[in-house]
Amino acid sequence: MSRPTLPRRVKVVEVGPRDGLQNEQAAIDTATKVQFIDRLAEAGLPVVEITAFVSPKWVPQMADAREVARAAARRPGVRFSALVPNRRGLDAAIECGLDHVAVFAAASETFSQRNINQSIAESMRNYAEVTAAARAQGLAVRAYLSTSFGCPYEGHVPVERVVELSAALIDMGAEEVAVSDTIGVAHPGQVVDVVEAVSARAPIGQIALHFHDTRGTALANVYAGLECGVATFDSSAGGLGGCPYAPGAAGNLATEDLIYLLDGLGIETGVELDTVVAASRLIAPHLGHALPSRYLQAANRQS
Amino acid sequence: MSRPTLPRRVKVVEVGPRDGLQNEQAAIDTATKVQFIDRLAEAGLPVVEITAFVSPKWVPQMADAREVARAAARRPGVRFSALVPNRRGLDAAIECGLDHVAVFAAASETFSQRNINQSIAESMRNYAEVTAAARAQGLAVRAYLSTSFGCPYEGHVPVERVVELSAALIDMGAEEVAVSDTIGVAHPGQVVDVVEAVSARAPIGQIALHFHDTRGTALANVYAGLECGVATFDSSAGGLGGCPYAPGAAGNLATEDLIYLLDGLGIETGVELDTVVAASRLIAPHLGHALPSRYLQAANRQS
Repeated sequence: MSRPTLPRRVKVVEVGPRDGLQNEQAAIDTATKVQFIDRLAEAGLPVVEITAFVSPKWVPQMADAREVARAAARRPGVRFSALVPNRRGLDAAIECGLDHVAVFAAASETFSQRNINQSIAESMRNYAEVTAAARAQGLAVRAYLSTSFGCPYEGHVPVERVVELSAALIDMGAEEVAVSDTIGVAHPGQVVDVVEAVSARAPIGQIALHFHDTRGTALANVYAGLECGVATFDSSAGGLGGCPYAPGAAGNLATEDLIYLLDGLGIETGVELDTVVAASRLIAPHLGHALPSRYLQAANRQS
Repeated sequence: MSRPTLPRRVKVVEVGPRDGLQNEQAAIDTATKVQFIDRLAEAGLPVVEITAFVSPKWVPQMADAREVARAAARRPGVRFSALVPNRRGLDAAIECGLDHVAVFAAASETFSQRNINQSIAESMRNYAEVTAAARAQGLAVRAYLSTSFGCPYEGHVPVERVVELSAALIDMGAEEVAVSDTIGVAHPGQVVDVVEAVSARAPIGQIALHFHDTRGTALANVYAGLECGVATFDSSAGGLGGCPYAPGAAGNLATEDLIYLLDGLGIETGVELDTVVAASRLIAPHLGHALPSRYLQAANRQS
């Protein structure tokens, strides 16, 4: 019987205020977002992606990116990050005092075209420029590689393309690539395949995994990732971004469910589960639906 | 990097018509139950626990156990089973033509007292008698060991007690012990601990795992169980039995989510996922709430 060796410590990247909220229909006011971010920081989450400097035409929820980034109270030990699609977004992030940004590439050509209106090659040239400019000004850059486990338009995505693009993103200066299951189709066998292949070309310490719990497999995928030595996982408070009853919704892995798993496994995260629950309860009344986190639902029934 | 060896084939025990329905508030009519069971059998589930021969005073939903057991159409390759608490229940199961029954013990004294109104020792004497009588008449017996990963009243449950009771249930003639996480608190590290300990005293082929997805960890627990060599898992169509918005509800692991995981891992089950979805859709309108299966919810959004 195998008893796998797991990382002693895991970094949890909280993406609720960005990936979560941008997929919610309800417009959330700036003050509530800032309180939500503050509670997440208080919970001890080491990285919180707080907003995206994108066109409000495309993502109305992020129209107050500057206000949010300026108002969110910095705390020692917590890094605030923001998504930036281009130089203009980067400049805005810097103006707002951020020292950590993220770029967003895709492993599927059709998804790249439809999501960011650029071919993969165009986006990689753009991100190379953004990354170089960010690093020249002392910022750290994270890269997402979306649709790494499957594409809503193309279906299967070849592992070789995920490897090649992950390596290219790291080579251009990203400190970390979040290999992302955008549509929540991954299973643990695929996680092992993809992580094995990517880690042959990039250090395991620079690989993060980003799962959506669309088909319930997210925590099983995390467990498989842990067994492969991955020590950075993304999640969203309450599973924000996935309304289980809304057409097309895809839930991010819930931070509560992830922390419950990691706590159980004795893996250090520095995150206080109760305070994450408090953050979710703060945002929940503004959403118009129940948050899908299983742990949160269980906690709500007991209190 | 470890690439675990997993079982090539897994037996899925469908408990929706019993463990699922008995935890639903809505009274389901007999004809609907029989159709539901028929669809599950059509899906290729090798074992379907169809009802419980218990007092209708305690479990009104199972008051039609005889009618259900008589009406459910047998199919080659599908075993129908029923829960029996005592000799009277066993006799009723035999009268209705069943050749497979299940008994229900607990690893926590307080839970045993409150759930079946017997001490663990009393219940084990009772089940030894039931099992002997069943086997003497050619029936197969499965045993549940509830609260094996934690008790709602006592909290921690010692692994040694789970080992001792599992071994005793097998020694008395149960072909299989379903080591059960009744309240959905288990995490994968605990699964490895418990399965390692139990399998030192009982053949791994006689150990089944029964998870509830209360905190989202059920599939991660299945994956850990597979890595330990366990090849029998219980689940409930749609996650029946767990209404996410009802106080105290605890969702069974959903059959759809389990089959999606196993299909992804390339593990044979003989189960057709689409037909399980059809079974869930058949029962869903009678429940008064949405079924919690993540896979089912995703399938419903796409169709």
